[in-house]
Amino acid sequence: MEFIEEFNQMEEGQNSTEKAFKGQVQSVRRLKNITFCLLANGLEVFQVVVGNKNLNEALKIGMTIQGKGEVRSAELENIWLTKKNEEIAAREITVLSRPFEEPIIDWSKKELNVSGEVFWNYRALSLRHEKEKSIFYIQNTIVETFRSSLKSFGFVEMRTPKLCAQGAEGGANVFSLPYFGKTAYLAQSPQFYKEFGTGVFQKVFEVGPVFRSEKHNSSRHLNEYTSLDLEFGPLNSFEEIMRLEVSLMKSIIERVNQVHQRELEILEAPKLPIMEKVPRMTFREVKKVLAEKLGIQNAEEDLNPEEEKAIGRYVLEKWASEFLFVTHYLKSARPFYTMPANEEETYSFDLLFRGQEITTGGQRIHQYEDVINSIKESGLNLEELSFFTEAHKAGLPPHGGLGLGLERFTAGLLGISSVKYCVLYPRDTKRLTP
Amino acid sequence: MEFIEEFNQMEEGQNSTEKAFKGQVQSVRRLKNITFCLLANGLEVFQVVVGNKNLNEALKIGMTIQGKGEVRSAELENIWLTKKNEEIAAREITVLSRPFEEPIIDWSKKELNVSGEVFWNYRALSLRHEKEKSIFYIQNTIVETFRSSLKSFGFVEMRTPKLCAQGAEGGANVFSLPYFGKTAYLAQSPQFYKEFGTGVFQKVFEVGPVFRSEKHNSSRHLNEYTSLDLEFGPLNSFEEIMRLEVSLMKSIIERVNQVHQRELEILEAPKLPIMEKVPRMTFREVKKVLAEKLGIQNAEEDLNPEEEKAIGRYVLEKWASEFLFVTHYLKSARPFYTMPANEEETYSFDLLFRGQEITTGGQRIHQYEDVINSIKESGLNLEELSFFTEAHKAGLPPHGGLGLGLERFTAGLLGISSVKYCVLYPRDTKRLTP
Repeated sequence: MEFIEEFNQMEEGQNSTEKAFKGQVQSVRRLKNITFCLLANGLEVFQVVVGNKNLNEALKIGMTIQGKGEVRSAELENIWLTKKNEEIAAREITVLSRPFEEPIIDWSKKELNVSGEVFWNYRALSLRHEKEKSIFYIQNTIVETFRSSLKSFGFVEMRTPKLCAQGAEGGANVFSLPYFGKTAYLAQSPQFYKEFGTGVFQKVFEVGPVFRSEKHNSSRHLNEYTSLDLEFGPLNSFEEIMRLEVSLMKSIIERVNQVHQRELEILEAPKLPIMEKVPRMTFREVKKVLAEKLGIQNAEEDLNPEEEKAIGRYVLEKWASEFLFVTHYLKSARPFYTMPANEEETYSFDLLFRGQEITTGGQRIHQYEDVINSIKESGLNLEELSFFTEAHKAGLPPHGGLGLGLERFTAGLLGISSVKYCVLYPRDTKRLTP
Repeated sequence: MEFIEEFNQMEEGQNSTEKAFKGQVQSVRRLKNITFCLLANGLEVFQVVVGNKNLNEALKIGMTIQGKGEVRSAELENIWLTKKNEEIAAREITVLSRPFEEPIIDWSKKELNVSGEVFWNYRALSLRHEKEKSIFYIQNTIVETFRSSLKSFGFVEMRTPKLCAQGAEGGANVFSLPYFGKTAYLAQSPQFYKEFGTGVFQKVFEVGPVFRSEKHNSSRHLNEYTSLDLEFGPLNSFEEIMRLEVSLMKSIIERVNQVHQRELEILEAPKLPIMEKVPRMTFREVKKVLAEKLGIQNAEEDLNPEEEKAIGRYVLEKWASEFLFVTHYLKSARPFYTMPANEEETYSFDLLFRGQEITTGGQRIHQYEDVINSIKESGLNLEELSFFTEAHKAGLPPHGGLGLGLERFTAGLLGISSVKYCVLYPRDTKRLTP
């Protein structure tokens, strides 16, 4: 009979000069008498030097090794990776695991020069490149700052079901599956549940997967992505939602700037945007500028990617802002739960960033009579939505919220050409593996 | 043209005695001249008193109101809810939204006395009860402490796909759906992706939904639940995984104890367990004790719920521990990727808590040749799993990890009779709404 006790350190004891180390070999440079290698262990990347006579076998990329050695200062060529002019002179090295053969992708090079097919088919290997890893270190900071800022405002995190009896957005872009004799749908957004949340916790948020059965295969689309969602009440004006988003974005950008200089450098990312005051224009104002000043005519009741890019450039020139709130989208272009502003317009908004929509938000209808009328006008099935309207019947605060696409925001922030690079294992119409 | 600026406070300016307030009416007590009501706004619950002559309409549960008043000390009956002997004497109150009719559930009572049907059909209302909310405040602290502890150990958070080309566990308990001419499966666990993660970030974790198409409809089962997953390397022994879990559990229990006395009291929860040293027994030792000391014979190569309960009681009496690690499950009862300890046993474990399995974990096979042999022995399809074994081929550190069922742990910790109460909107074989 034995007992298991806790530990509080992942590494063995170490003093200032002697260090026990473990890690995965990221790159190897073998000279006549000594071998240099870079080791990765979690967030740490460090250089180890060992005399070849102390090695029982040649070190190779993909091996995992452990050893002990002296920490000493050194002028490193790869200081951009290690961020420390320091290396470990190892006395002994033990190989803990070995690759079966030379990896198909060499992740030690400064650039991954492989075809798209290889890059995506061997995603678990291309991700080992420091450039790819850097994207997710920054993305995690975006998520963490979203969470911590909202918690500081009193928001409660929710985990809502992904298997649902209805799609929240309606329409055809929903995956369906058999569910114990019924049909289930994969959640396109936590919309209904976050509205319920305003009656329970008043201020709620969720970071979770959403699913869209869209046939687009573009640099802006994914069939599964991460949505940063929030919803809150009691609301006095739909502008409070946009003000909250400005505050969140500001915190996120500041935090990324504080802790990710290494990763921004590795990625050769564009300068981080300044988030102070964000210009706002109504949908109709945007359409007018597009038609009268930019010569873009389009009768659609939404903005297409070309229009978003054009108005983005216009706002950047005119107000030096990389962000733009477009407000008051037309009723016909928004879902039934959107709060009307007048006969035609709604209290809704999109946030455009560098010419691309990254957020959709707005105030929602909170009174029971009003949501019932809106469902009827939209021609939707009242009975199927009764589980939703029961919350309104029992009283909901005036409320609103938004959804921020994590991958689009990450790609925009880091100047990455497609959202696919901003997901560990992307899903599009052609890809379900790895 | 206007600009949107950030805000940093959800509430309007307030000084020490005058307070602007907003919130949802949780309970009302109307006397001849004055009305007392409890208001909820996020994590705050507070009492407001107003003279009836200052009210344009009677206050009702489910309304959202705002107003201004003086903060003053008061002896409150519901101090167990508000935790402050303080109330707001309101001078004016404005009603922001109203319920359409008296809610079908009265969430102001100390106990929700409604049938199971009503409780679950109107889950968005039953959740408004302080008792139900308390479960999720505590559950959020469990998740937050899991995340923050792992980050302090250098773990990286991952978001892995829920739409997959294979089920990770094999077998029939997997949901499937049409996916652009292919068949997709809903992830039963992030197993494959977290193993990849040890080759990328070395130490990884995920908090996310998992899906099991199990026909059980019991107090221990859900068809969609939240799994707290971690995986790490380079590992020197599979005991490191259990030591990490002890450390995590200890942090979680300490944190819940620190910040949730109010919620523990509202829930009348049992005393929090002591997590110091956790006894460990091998699977075979457990079977022997069950047979020889407790008179329970069962030829199955796993432990059933009755056996888990019995050994839990035995360990509690013998070593005063509410936790037990059962190690060395037999090969036949574990998936193909489990590291063998010898011909029959594996380096695997379950953590039992109060007589119920809450964690399954273990070391995994890291060498390519070994994982290929194991797949062959298990009779699985090598080609279908090639996307998985490519990571081993390129080298993975010796690694292992665990999955902790959030709802089972929450229920066990708080003495709640079914995991269903520990999900906002549970999914079982009969329930897809709300």
